[in-house]
Amino acid sequence: MTLDEKTQPATLDPVRAQAFLADFATMSAFGATIHGGVDRQAASPADIEQRRWLQGLLEQHGLRVQYDRIGNQFGLLELNPGAPYVVVGSHMDSQPTAGRYDGAYGVLAAAHAIFRIADELRETGEQPALNLAVVNWFNEEGSRFVPSMMGSSVYTGLMPLEEALAVEDPAGISVREALEPTGFLGEGDGPVAACCAEIHIEQGRLLEDAGTTIGLVTASWAASKYVVTVEGEQSHSGATVMADRRDALLGASQLVVFARELADRFPGVLHTAVGKLDVYPNSPVVVASRVRLLLDLRCADEAVLAEANALLQAELPRIEERVNVALSVEKSHEWGINPYQPEGVELARSVAARLGYAHDEIKTVAGHDSINMKERVPTVMLFVPSVQGVSHNEGEYTEDRDALAGLDVLTGVVRRLASGELRA
Amino acid sequence: MTLDEKTQPATLDPVRAQAFLADFATMSAFGATIHGGVDRQAASPADIEQRRWLQGLLEQHGLRVQYDRIGNQFGLLELNPGAPYVVVGSHMDSQPTAGRYDGAYGVLAAAHAIFRIADELRETGEQPALNLAVVNWFNEEGSRFVPSMMGSSVYTGLMPLEEALAVEDPAGISVREALEPTGFLGEGDGPVAACCAEIHIEQGRLLEDAGTTIGLVTASWAASKYVVTVEGEQSHSGATVMADRRDALLGASQLVVFARELADRFPGVLHTAVGKLDVYPNSPVVVASRVRLLLDLRCADEAVLAEANALLQAELPRIEERVNVALSVEKSHEWGINPYQPEGVELARSVAARLGYAHDEIKTVAGHDSINMKERVPTVMLFVPSVQGVSHNEGEYTEDRDALAGLDVLTGVVRRLASGELRA
Repeated sequence: MTLDEKTQPATLDPVRAQAFLADFATMSAFGATIHGGVDRQAASPADIEQRRWLQGLLEQHGLRVQYDRIGNQFGLLELNPGAPYVVVGSHMDSQPTAGRYDGAYGVLAAAHAIFRIADELRETGEQPALNLAVVNWFNEEGSRFVPSMMGSSVYTGLMPLEEALAVEDPAGISVREALEPTGFLGEGDGPVAACCAEIHIEQGRLLEDAGTTIGLVTASWAASKYVVTVEGEQSHSGATVMADRRDALLGASQLVVFARELADRFPGVLHTAVGKLDVYPNSPVVVASRVRLLLDLRCADEAVLAEANALLQAELPRIEERVNVALSVEKSHEWGINPYQPEGVELARSVAARLGYAHDEIKTVAGHDSINMKERVPTVMLFVPSVQGVSHNEGEYTEDRDALAGLDVLTGVVRRLASGELRA
Repeated sequence: MTLDEKTQPATLDPVRAQAFLADFATMSAFGATIHGGVDRQAASPADIEQRRWLQGLLEQHGLRVQYDRIGNQFGLLELNPGAPYVVVGSHMDSQPTAGRYDGAYGVLAAAHAIFRIADELRETGEQPALNLAVVNWFNEEGSRFVPSMMGSSVYTGLMPLEEALAVEDPAGISVREALEPTGFLGEGDGPVAACCAEIHIEQGRLLEDAGTTIGLVTASWAASKYVVTVEGEQSHSGATVMADRRDALLGASQLVVFARELADRFPGVLHTAVGKLDVYPNSPVVVASRVRLLLDLRCADEAVLAEANALLQAELPRIEERVNVALSVEKSHEWGINPYQPEGVELARSVAARLGYAHDEIKTVAGHDSINMKERVPTVMLFVPSVQGVSHNEGEYTEDRDALAGLDVLTGVVRRLASGELRA
């Protein structure tokens, strides 16, 4: 592997750059799919193997590996005994048939940033104000075990531990049962964080479209997430007179169509989606009696989100009447436009500027573990471009040059965080 | 259990009536659900236990039980060595959370009709022209193993044996694997049929609305059945710009909504349904890349069905363009208005008239094993009313009086079929 001039980032020496890309190639082999993606759902065999591999890599660089009570994986570098930690990382679990970069890139970048800072400190003999920790959060994706961002939610106290451990996958295996045999179910609460940093691919195409290399994340979009149950009545899908039917799948389909129409009323500002939908009894000749679906609204503007929620509420009784079904709609999550600490954005801006990378502010639509962390400690979130905004897809791709630029900026950010600049 | 005068049918003596109702109560306990229905999918533990019970009942009445190579269960009464059989029955497997009557009623009525005729022949010493067989067809419902009417399709040569045995349920268990350990996978082709009779609940409410006790089935509705695959592209359901999405679930939902609109254009003549719909990857934060669904059109008028099929074909490219997905539509089954042999209808009419039951002609919208059988041999199909047309539902119910009237007419029909009246 060689790096041409264009690929070579500002301050990252070629040996470190190549080491990062080589490790990234290795880690992408865990759960690799034939179409160039990965399948590493939380606590699956591929996720477990990859965690063992990361443990080896971290230990090789002198970090002490520790697991907390929800299976978050930490690589600790204690340089100032007793001081709290700069917690840097992301997640290595994936959606089924996902891309190689989502989460995994951020964990490896955190590891390599800390490896480099550790080497520098060893050379200078300096003692930083804070200790350093790589983190690989458990179950960020939430595809096997709902909800997403589980590990960071428990770590930050936003989700009770016992509730998380009791969550079952579709086969009835609980988080506890999945984690226990792996040895990843630790005992403590993990290291105490003083501040946090995460880098991630954008999963959109604003950076690419603008020719920007580094996104300085200022806030997350507001969101309302619903669990919707449509109750109809089972009947023979051939023989039953149409007027007598109470078709739960028809009601659900009308809601899916409406959700898209809702997004189209507020172009660019509102995103809506139904990604998960389950039909019961889901038999060829039975009118469905029940459909359960997850409906998300994500919005760059809280006033628009309120209006969209009101329009949704107004539509529900219309669907109920038209289809003769009952809709029960339960809000499972809700959050407003949620800013990252502005001092963190400024710190990241000055690092990117000094290194000479094109950078700009950006909001995140997707959820990230750092959204939980920023509720507790000052948190810096960085994005690098993802080609054509492709994500949660095996074709997800980030140019090496951008991946290395992100590593370079993250290293600069963590170096300053370690000095205590943004300490909680 | 006592029978009042209203319940007591024309020629069925109270002892036989009570024996039938008692056996029906016993058989309804296999796979019983707490809401008064049953769950006996093909080759499930409940289906297997119930088949063992039926075998005992048949043997107790002197019938020899035999299984063919697709697990159809026959109870043979050979009265005229070497002669072919009147094959009478239905199926005992059910949809998940189904009713007690669908199929099971027809098998038990066949058994009790043959028990009675055997007793009569024993008394008179008469030898009938044909032998008698009760049949419990394997996997009529097709909910666990697709397609439906599997056992009668293989028996009649309409589906290749090896294709049927290789069909897998959602857990990857094949028909062969499910049947082999039960001992129900026999070696031969089953008895040779000369003619056939089946009785079933209507699964609609025409008989009830008209106050008719016995439906003389003249034909089955025409049908077109499709397997539809909607191909979109996986992407992040939060972050991806709406205009970039290729949401397979949105495409599928538009098709479900369209199918209902199509039925509404031809009220009473066209029934449409999507009962089964599977989403991939079906994850909360991923735009679906693929949806597979089964779409049925059933129609009392072949010209209307052709028009509906044309309208459906015209809609597909519109959905593809609007949603930016690809629809692939494969016709899995197609049949026209398919008459039962008119001589059989006349035979049943004269039996019902002689016994004094209100009767009328009716078409079947639902599929039945007799639809396969009538392609091969003269076949009589009878309906009894189902209250409010409720079917494929735990609340399915037929009055005892109607169930017994059906048994009475079926007995009369089988008696005349045994004499060789409709012989192929």
